[in-house]
Amino acid sequence: MKLLDTSSPTHVLAQWVVDSQWTEIDESTQKAVASSWMNWLACALGGANSHESDRLIRALAPFGQGDAQLIGRSEKLDPANAALIHAFNSNILDFDDTHWPTGIHPAGTVASALVAWSSQTIVSGTDFLHAFLLGMEVECRIGLAVSPGHYERGWHITATCGVFGAAIAVGRLMGLSPEQMAWAIGHAATQSGGLVASLGSMAKSLNIAHAARNGLMAAQLARHNITANDRVLEARFGFNEVMGTRALDESLCAGLGQNWIASQNTFKPYPCGFLLHPTLEACLTKSDAQIFALDEIERITVTVHPLSQLRADRIHPVDGLEAKLSLQHAVAIALLRGEAGVRYFTDNAANDLVVRACREKMRVIADERLNTDEAKVVIHLQSGDVITRASSGAQPPMSPKALEHKFRELVAFGAPHCNADELLETLATFPQMANVADLIAMTVPQS
Amino acid sequence: MKLLDTSSPTHVLAQWVVDSQWTEIDESTQKAVASSWMNWLACALGGANSHESDRLIRALAPFGQGDAQLIGRSEKLDPANAALIHAFNSNILDFDDTHWPTGIHPAGTVASALVAWSSQTIVSGTDFLHAFLLGMEVECRIGLAVSPGHYERGWHITATCGVFGAAIAVGRLMGLSPEQMAWAIGHAATQSGGLVASLGSMAKSLNIAHAARNGLMAAQLARHNITANDRVLEARFGFNEVMGTRALDESLCAGLGQNWIASQNTFKPYPCGFLLHPTLEACLTKSDAQIFALDEIERITVTVHPLSQLRADRIHPVDGLEAKLSLQHAVAIALLRGEAGVRYFTDNAANDLVVRACREKMRVIADERLNTDEAKVVIHLQSGDVITRASSGAQPPMSPKALEHKFRELVAFGAPHCNADELLETLATFPQMANVADLIAMTVPQS
Repeated sequence: MKLLDTSSPTHVLAQWVVDSQWTEIDESTQKAVASSWMNWLACALGGANSHESDRLIRALAPFGQGDAQLIGRSEKLDPANAALIHAFNSNILDFDDTHWPTGIHPAGTVASALVAWSSQTIVSGTDFLHAFLLGMEVECRIGLAVSPGHYERGWHITATCGVFGAAIAVGRLMGLSPEQMAWAIGHAATQSGGLVASLGSMAKSLNIAHAARNGLMAAQLARHNITANDRVLEARFGFNEVMGTRALDESLCAGLGQNWIASQNTFKPYPCGFLLHPTLEACLTKSDAQIFALDEIERITVTVHPLSQLRADRIHPVDGLEAKLSLQHAVAIALLRGEAGVRYFTDNAANDLVVRACREKMRVIADERLNTDEAKVVIHLQSGDVITRASSGAQPPMSPKALEHKFRELVAFGAPHCNADELLETLATFPQMANVADLIAMTVPQS
Repeated sequence: MKLLDTSSPTHVLAQWVVDSQWTEIDESTQKAVASSWMNWLACALGGANSHESDRLIRALAPFGQGDAQLIGRSEKLDPANAALIHAFNSNILDFDDTHWPTGIHPAGTVASALVAWSSQTIVSGTDFLHAFLLGMEVECRIGLAVSPGHYERGWHITATCGVFGAAIAVGRLMGLSPEQMAWAIGHAATQSGGLVASLGSMAKSLNIAHAARNGLMAAQLARHNITANDRVLEARFGFNEVMGTRALDESLCAGLGQNWIASQNTFKPYPCGFLLHPTLEACLTKSDAQIFALDEIERITVTVHPLSQLRADRIHPVDGLEAKLSLQHAVAIALLRGEAGVRYFTDNAANDLVVRACREKMRVIADERLNTDEAKVVIHLQSGDVITRASSGAQPPMSPKALEHKFRELVAFGAPHCNADELLETLATFPQMANVADLIAMTVPQS
């Protein structure tokens, strides 16, 4: 055991993950991770029975039979493929979570791999939440270290960094040694991938799905003493050199266990790409918000951060998956329908002729003076009136009540066989659970 | 079906793969691919029972039970994990093959996925070789399109491009439509990964193993109409933009089916990194080659292309895996032992005190006037004599006799339960085989 070399960030992270104690973590961080878990479970159940999920499970049928129970479904698969399916399902509605400073949706890969692993062994609620927190923390820290250049260059950061989170979390549950944990990071890094070009197709949620599976596999390889580069983050031709855009700085490991980056996670109020949210906030949350008829609108100007324009200036989304990445679509449904729920990001909604006509009245402008969490919408009416709506800065965190509402909505949408009351009761005392598999079992349809 | 758009290189490749006819392929190309297959099988059997392979199979035990027979072993796994194991085994001895213009070892990912798929369905010898050729061809063409910047930047090109080869080959066997083939390329691209920092650990052969598995999975996803970016090679934030280093030029699709890049594949004469081979050629193939005693040598200068120096200037390899990437180790065993066979790249050989002392007498110099396939070794003897050995330019292709010798050596080394005579006889008429699974079955140990 050559670890710990304190000059190696990879070693420092690996050792910290192994040494971390739940009882030393402040209560607000413990509560924050429990909320991330509740939000993830809502999303995973919401997408569990989508037609995309059905198709993916059919494709995987020749592979990976096993004992890991799928959340919200009746099938079992091996843990690696179960992790893949969970991550896909939890992302397919684009309703998950956002760590704004990086654009990472941090829970997906981590919780998906953890649930897959936990369903076929005994894991307590506290150990689960602790591993979940550690995984998200390392994932977000690596994400910050390569931001903003990495995502801007075309790396789907939720996947490329999410693979680390899954590896760390499952590795922690497995009780890896520090050296094995460093190898797990090495195996994760060398499997890191996922192109932004996949956004708008099913391969987008699959990027995250592969990352969850690959992270779980990274931990499993390390556990069996299959070696990897144990300094991969900082190594020559390692992760940061090849996939980052600047030198690795000291902030990667600064304040570990004190300054929790993962507790900055936020939960999506709308089921679409996070870069659309400020624009939706602008349209929907003002006290004078109103619904317009198509004929009333002459033209609309939407002004956003350049990254938002680059990713989401999409006037003609062909289906629901693309609609989730269209600023024009978001504004159209907000102004015409007065809301932006799951039913307005479907294939039908994308091809609604009235929505389409409204999208065509729009122009999207990039303005580098805005942040990614800001937007301005100017509506020119046929009457000559001009209405300006803006959202500035971070939206307030989702309240416990709003999160419960989201949970119930998603259970009803994607897993109506589940008893939402019972699930919420169980989640309220989740840290006291002796075996997380009991909660997973509650989501399985009774035959 | 929107394909074919002739302005899209991804579409052109997809359509070409679907339309290709074996009978229209010239005989020398058909023979070349049969030799690549024989060389791959030799390597896969040579590594089939390595301790590394045993460990990897133990790690995968909780995953992927299935009906795909492992080559040279008794276990069965699902096709995805079987592809992974095959690729690992065929690479672990570092004895595989080399496409010199890119540095890709092209057969590994492609044959590994094909064998895994073929063992659980019926595939004829001709269809197998045809799919194998098409996979290697697309893989090498994509490799050329991103060379040399991609590998120099730190991408393990055999993995990053190999994933395309596996997807194409298995996709062809599955009979994908052109649109599905384009999605398969999209799924392959978005899973492409593998860091050069993994070289020197078991994660190096795993890079190739993951690529074989991921390529097979890409084809399977596309077959089930799971969508991906169908123009991923040229797309904004696609493969070339994110992982290449220059604009995609027309040579990617020029002369398809006429100018076969894959037929330039060469077979390794030594079980180590290909960048060591010119140096070994310089030491071993001159008619006046001789064995030296350690005490006779005062110092040695090894001059190579800068990339070789960057990858393989490694004075103290700690084990066999690192020895395969050490110019100093290669020169030491060549001069002290007069050969460079499998037994001189083991953990024991790496730690041999005489070899170690010899390595310490060496200096490696980069000279950009040399090509990667050239090297110069200057030996200063204690006697005052100076001996210069150089290898210049491409080594001659391996003769059929030498390939047969390599095949027998590797079967004896890694799968002594196999009957090499019978296997060679079957390979001689492989294109006439009705079912490739019959050959795979011949490699299984009788219980």
